[in-house]
Amino acid sequence: MQPPGGFTELSLIARIARAAATRRSATLRLGIGDDCAILRPPRGHEILVTTDLSLETRHFCRDWLKPSISGVSAGHRTLARGLSDLAAMGAKPLAAFLSLALPAGVEAKWVDRFLEGLLALAKAHGVPLAGGDTAQAPGEYLLADIMLIGSAPAGRALRRSGARPGDRIFVTGALGGAAAELERLQQEKPVGGKGPHTFPEPRLAQGRALLRRRLASACIDVSDGLSTDLNHLCEASGVQATLDSASIPIHVLARGRLELALHGGEDYELLFTASPGTRVPRKLAGVAITEIGSITRRSARRPALLLDGELLKPGGWEHFAEARPGKSG
Amino acid sequence: MQPPGGFTELSLIARIARAAATRRSATLRLGIGDDCAILRPPRGHEILVTTDLSLETRHFCRDWLKPSISGVSAGHRTLARGLSDLAAMGAKPLAAFLSLALPAGVEAKWVDRFLEGLLALAKAHGVPLAGGDTAQAPGEYLLADIMLIGSAPAGRALRRSGARPGDRIFVTGALGGAAAELERLQQEKPVGGKGPHTFPEPRLAQGRALLRRRLASACIDVSDGLSTDLNHLCEASGVQATLDSASIPIHVLARGRLELALHGGEDYELLFTASPGTRVPRKLAGVAITEIGSITRRSARRPALLLDGELLKPGGWEHFAEARPGKSG
Repeated sequence: MQPPGGFTELSLIARIARAAATRRSATLRLGIGDDCAILRPPRGHEILVTTDLSLETRHFCRDWLKPSISGVSAGHRTLARGLSDLAAMGAKPLAAFLSLALPAGVEAKWVDRFLEGLLALAKAHGVPLAGGDTAQAPGEYLLADIMLIGSAPAGRALRRSGARPGDRIFVTGALGGAAAELERLQQEKPVGGKGPHTFPEPRLAQGRALLRRRLASACIDVSDGLSTDLNHLCEASGVQATLDSASIPIHVLARGRLELALHGGEDYELLFTASPGTRVPRKLAGVAITEIGSITRRSARRPALLLDGELLKPGGWEHFAEARPGKSG
Repeated sequence: MQPPGGFTELSLIARIARAAATRRSATLRLGIGDDCAILRPPRGHEILVTTDLSLETRHFCRDWLKPSISGVSAGHRTLARGLSDLAAMGAKPLAAFLSLALPAGVEAKWVDRFLEGLLALAKAHGVPLAGGDTAQAPGEYLLADIMLIGSAPAGRALRRSGARPGDRIFVTGALGGAAAELERLQQEKPVGGKGPHTFPEPRLAQGRALLRRRLASACIDVSDGLSTDLNHLCEASGVQATLDSASIPIHVLARGRLELALHGGEDYELLFTASPGTRVPRKLAGVAITEIGSITRRSARRPALLLDGELLKPGGWEHFAEARPGKSG
């Protein structure tokens, strides 16, 4: 059976290969078209790998947003999630791989726009789309899985586990903007232009600067929300953290709502710690850096987060616990 | 909402991490638990990457086969597909990454068995499960995406594109067994023990031997069927091929049915070519090697396949063109 959209697997691969127009380079030795892609990482570098599922109804909706934006935004966000994981470890992206399961009847135009959004962001960061897989999805939903390969000098990648008592806590940019834009989209009051939910900017340059300049003792990206991701960092480091609410940079779209900045999620800013002796600049690659708290010794078996001295419960978005946006769970 | 199966995302990741029990090694510097995994490939090696979607109703069915086999087989086959892509290029596997989208209400026991099947094959080939992603699937179907990272000495990976006129064509093992077992399963006449459809064996040792001993001019794995995959190899090499039907090794389960060996698919044997001067052994790492035809000059713009002098149409399984096994498309 051929889906109404008119894709066969080979035509879709050809479409992706054409759209990607992947060229052989010093790093990418072989792209789409064989059983595997071949990468040659820079000498003395280690390889970093991350994968992220993007699922219709959970991470995007095809029938949501203006038709001209929906696919482009979904493609952009699919890649941004993976790039942000590389950014959090200070890695340079080498190549992306995309697995796409398309339901019967998907509009070819939507898929084109999805690829357009994904490839525009890839181009902006010089990341070739080097392979992947395609298949007809069972059921009615579209699913994408993005895999990113990056590299970092051996032993130098930033980790979640390096924070020590006395370290200060910093964040790039501002928080709560993605949640605020999502809320406005749900109320059908879209923001003009490219908002932080529809077109988040992975902080690759900032992550690489943190690594290169040895500024960070630990780092994570803010994908699930400041409170949840800071908790992950504290658990990995065996420490706890105190935040100062007045210093948390709230995105202008969130209009001073601290809740959105604390728990909103999907901002894809970098959250990092620096040792007391480190001079952290006010900006990195054009993006503001703000000190928001400090790391303390763990007082109980499970690390706790404090906000202005009060216990703060990690309350970010947990994929299995809550449905969004729209439709079913 | 929490699915009846009782998974939250974090508990599922913990379950996978426990099941994988990934240990730090000279190659795997950091496994599950940070934003990315970190791999250190052997010095002088390139990185090979492949991803494969395994979709419920298309690649496996949860309610098919005996409950004790269904999940184990689906997990085994999910990993086998990726390992077979590495085998086809002569690569050594370094790490696997699994993305799992689980529908609400999936039985925890089925997922455990899926992981059991996947991890048993991983262990047999010394491949750590180093990361991945999990999410609740939209709709009612389970989806898995497997990504494999391997390595091969720089510039030495086997490719589809190296076949030249005069080369001979070889295949490992026997063909048609997976299709024959599938047919018997559809007729509810299961074969005893581990059949070639339910538990295919990726030919990693054979692929590495081909590379190490410089035996192959081109190589591909037989995933879509001999005719389709030979056609891919011919297109990539700009040549055409002649097969000798009498010499094609037909799997004992296929009982002499050449059609199944030609077009059946999912055998995961290796199909390779060797230059006229190369002495190809009769066995590689315990598996029979059979000469089945030869490569000739391309006579038209599109390469043709010939079987005993007659035109052979590539007729293997094309994921978008045909549904299987069971249910919907």
